Amino acid sequence: MSETRTEIQTLGEFGLIDHLTRNFETHNASTILGVGDDAAVIDHFGKQTVISTDLLLEGIHFDLMYTPLKHLGYKAVMVNLSDIYAMNATPTQITVSIGMSNRFSVEAINELYEGIHIACEKHGVDLIGGDTSTSQKGLIISVTAIGEVTPDQFVKRSTASKGDLICVSGDLGGAFLGLTLMEREKKIYLENPQVQPDLENESYIVGRLLKPEARKDIIAFFESQKIVPTAMMDVSDGISSEVLHLCKQSNLGCRIYEEKLPIAEDSRKAAFKFGLDPTVCALNGGEDYELIFTLKQEDHEKITLNEEISVIGYMTELEEGCKLLTKGGNSFAITAQGWNAFQQ
Amino acid sequence: MSETRTEIQTLGEFGLIDHLTRNFETHNASTILGVGDDAAVIDHFGKQTVISTDLLLEGIHFDLMYTPLKHLGYKAVMVNLSDIYAMNATPTQITVSIGMSNRFSVEAINELYEGIHIACEKHGVDLIGGDTSTSQKGLIISVTAIGEVTPDQFVKRSTASKGDLICVSGDLGGAFLGLTLMEREKKIYLENPQVQPDLENESYIVGRLLKPEARKDIIAFFESQKIVPTAMMDVSDGISSEVLHLCKQSNLGCRIYEEKLPIAEDSRKAAFKFGLDPTVCALNGGEDYELIFTLKQEDHEKITLNEEISVIGYMTELEEGCKLLTKGGNSFAITAQGWNAFQQ
Repeated sequence: MSETRTEIQTLGEFGLIDHLTRNFETHNASTILGVGDDAAVIDHFGKQTVISTDLLLEGIHFDLMYTPLKHLGYKAVMVNLSDIYAMNATPTQITVSIGMSNRFSVEAINELYEGIHIACEKHGVDLIGGDTSTSQKGLIISVTAIGEVTPDQFVKRSTASKGDLICVSGDLGGAFLGLTLMEREKKIYLENPQVQPDLENESYIVGRLLKPEARKDIIAFFESQKIVPTAMMDVSDGISSEVLHLCKQSNLGCRIYEEKLPIAEDSRKAAFKFGLDPTVCALNGGEDYELIFTLKQEDHEKITLNEEISVIGYMTELEEGCKLLTKGGNSFAITAQGWNAFQQ
Repeated sequence: MSETRTEIQTLGEFGLIDHLTRNFETHNASTILGVGDDAAVIDHFGKQTVISTDLLLEGIHFDLMYTPLKHLGYKAVMVNLSDIYAMNATPTQITVSIGMSNRFSVEAINELYEGIHIACEKHGVDLIGGDTSTSQKGLIISVTAIGEVTPDQFVKRSTASKGDLICVSGDLGGAFLGLTLMEREKKIYLENPQVQPDLENESYIVGRLLKPEARKDIIAFFESQKIVPTAMMDVSDGISSEVLHLCKQSNLGCRIYEEKLPIAEDSRKAAFKFGLDPTVCALNGGEDYELIFTLKQEDHEKITLNEEISVIGYMTELEEGCKLLTKGGNSFAITAQGWNAFQQ
């Protein structure tokens, strides 16, 4: 971060918006009118519009003690793009509203917008509007993501069928283990500020927490292989919680195999180091921002060559419940232990 | 408000969303998929999509000491719909994200959503998504409004021409006077809680503050009269500030006549009571949520029969500057004294 400190008041609201958005160019033909008017205008030229929104609050969703502002900006965008991909849609625009207390300087907010900018560039998304305001306490980030989808080609959570394969992208539990590590290091630091953080060899799980990647590649793969999932959602609260959503909304049960849960070697090592069960981390850890989706069995062959996709189980009749089959051959009912912002 | 108090934790995030959205039905054919999935889906069937977003923070944008939650919910929606109308577009959907500390009960949030519901019903708008979360402090409301407009029929701020008439809907300064009254009563109450608030005869300015109305009627009037303003925006920061935006973005100057500024009789009376100049309140008071727009001179006749529209001046060459002509015949440069969230 720069060493100079410019107070936000010196720019004023409109000056700040001009300053923050000066490097953002629009790339999508659908962006008819961007930042600078009462509202933005989009023309998806016959496609349907997909909209999702998320509110990120300091102290609840992020801790600035171990979250660089650039990473936070990047993540705030990714979390929202992930929801758009989870509809089998392509994100095209975002709006970003920021509330910040006077402890933040213009330089600090620049860092945040740099991360937002990188995320937008990477996914070809235009920043088209927002709002900035002072807050009494803490940093508040509200992002709305807009995308497009060929009419009626979006994929809901409620349309899985009995016998469909349950698949997940990437690997699970890494972000939760990264959070566990950061919280541990924070505690050590607060007790003894002389101790340097021990993050060696932990870059994988730290990256999973601080720099999640929305799975654009999976949606592109579906398109290239002419695959349409029967149901899909993103993994934000933990796979247990998401599987239960898919089952409840599709009015079905499921069987998940413990041995099929994709867990990265680095996550497994970290779990053992912290005395945690890697399976529990994979099931209940949140914020992986992977995609969970169901496929017709005849599509199985199409996905076998994609190493980023794991088949973890299949959908069953409602009466069979939602079950986890362990490596030891036991069967347990899956319960949502997912992250819940109201249980903190 | 109900006397029972239900803690938000008893419902959990998903339970709370289900509970709050249970009475919201969708009315627009454009709402293909509403609340309950990763994202909502909209099909404006060939029309362009208009998007605007606003962040409302307790202690900055509203004071719960004199703002009933039902009114706050209503106003949070209106503020956003006003931005959509200001594009000459029709609002069709909103998303609402709420952050709240544990001092709010389910009953309190119900009140907020009742106001949101009334506003949606009144303007034929569908609630299609959002996010709820706990906050460390205070109430946070982020609303994104979505609307539709016939392709390329939206009205920007930057397209006024020299000689165009400057018009404003309704009357000005009322919301600021309502705020002045409420702040005065709050101060009296805090000094002596026995004193009953003196709001008699002040219902007009209180209503202007607590229950603003987005000007759907003006947009409908334009359509019925086949009027397309040359430029338009909504009046949220005060007409001085908005006039300067129109001039700057259209690269023009303007002349505004003090005697033409529409001020309600109740506002005028309140201003005198508080020792304020009604003209200054009209120029610099914020939150009126009226529309300011420019018209070609040949459209003048079309608006003369609409009592809700006042012609307050006209656009001039850039070199002539932005001038207010007073009743006394003096000319002053208009400066933005508008409300600025960073100057508080």
